Amino acid sequence: MELEDCQRRLTHARVATLATVGIHGPHLVPVVFAMEGDKVFTAVDHKPKRSRRLQRMRNIVSDPAVSLLADHYDDDWTQLWWVRADGMATIIDDPAQMKRGLDLLVAKYDQYLTNRPQGPVIEIAVERWSGWAAASG
Amino acid sequence: MELEDCQRRLTHARVATLATVGIHGPHLVPVVFAMEGDKVFTAVDHKPKRSRRLQRMRNIVSDPAVSLLADHYDDDWTQLWWVRADGMATIIDDPAQMKRGLDLLVAKYDQYLTNRPQGPVIEIAVERWSGWAAASG
Repeated sequence: MELEDCQRRLTHARVATLATVGIHGPHLVPVVFAMEGDKVFTAVDHKPKRSRRLQRMRNIVSDPAVSLLADHYDDDWTQLWWVRADGMATIIDDPAQMKRGLDLLVAKYDQYLTNRPQGPVIEIAVERWSGWAAASG
Repeated sequence: MELEDCQRRLTHARVATLATVGIHGPHLVPVVFAMEGDKVFTAVDHKPKRSRRLQRMRNIVSDPAVSLLADHYDDDWTQLWWVRADGMATIIDDPAQMKRGLDLLVAKYDQYLTNRPQGPVIEIAVERWSGWAAASG
């Protein structure tokens, strides 16, 4: 799949699976997210102190390599597609630095309008795009 | 989420995300799968020789720790839920040993009735279940 198609499909996906790696193996969690160019932003809704203890946060601190996958399933398998973005994650908890990511998230999800996430924000710098669609494969 | 609820939701999910770990970090791919107790089966549709070169296969050979996530997204966030199964994966390519997993996959997915996967089969022995549902959280 072409880079532009990967980016377009991920931009419009409402949910994706975020993978980090810990000492016991891979760790998966579904996330809502927003994109801007080669950057992906996702936020933690909990209070910052508690957020630091989340497995994904601890994993990123010790190993910033992450992967994000969005996929479309349909029982008509000619409609299947997926897009994957691999990159390096950074945890941002400085309010000024978090603003851009949080603004993008609020712009994408109406649910955040009345309940803006507090952060921290995970910012992923995407280094490699992959994608596949049954219809074009 | 209770163990039984985790297992029930995963059993009925049509697709999940499989995470393995390679030298460059986590690797994600969507999979169709079938369950039996604490075992999860997923198959590769390609010819066995080519399958061996798939990233997920190479990763499992060097590190069998895997994670599988199924989630439900809805713009009504009170409907969100996810289930995660962490465990150890084994690659099975002996035809006799593959039969049970392939039979379960064909029983779950009509798409496989006329196009039985050739394998190999990835068998995951689940060691830890996790789950969350907004409605009960």
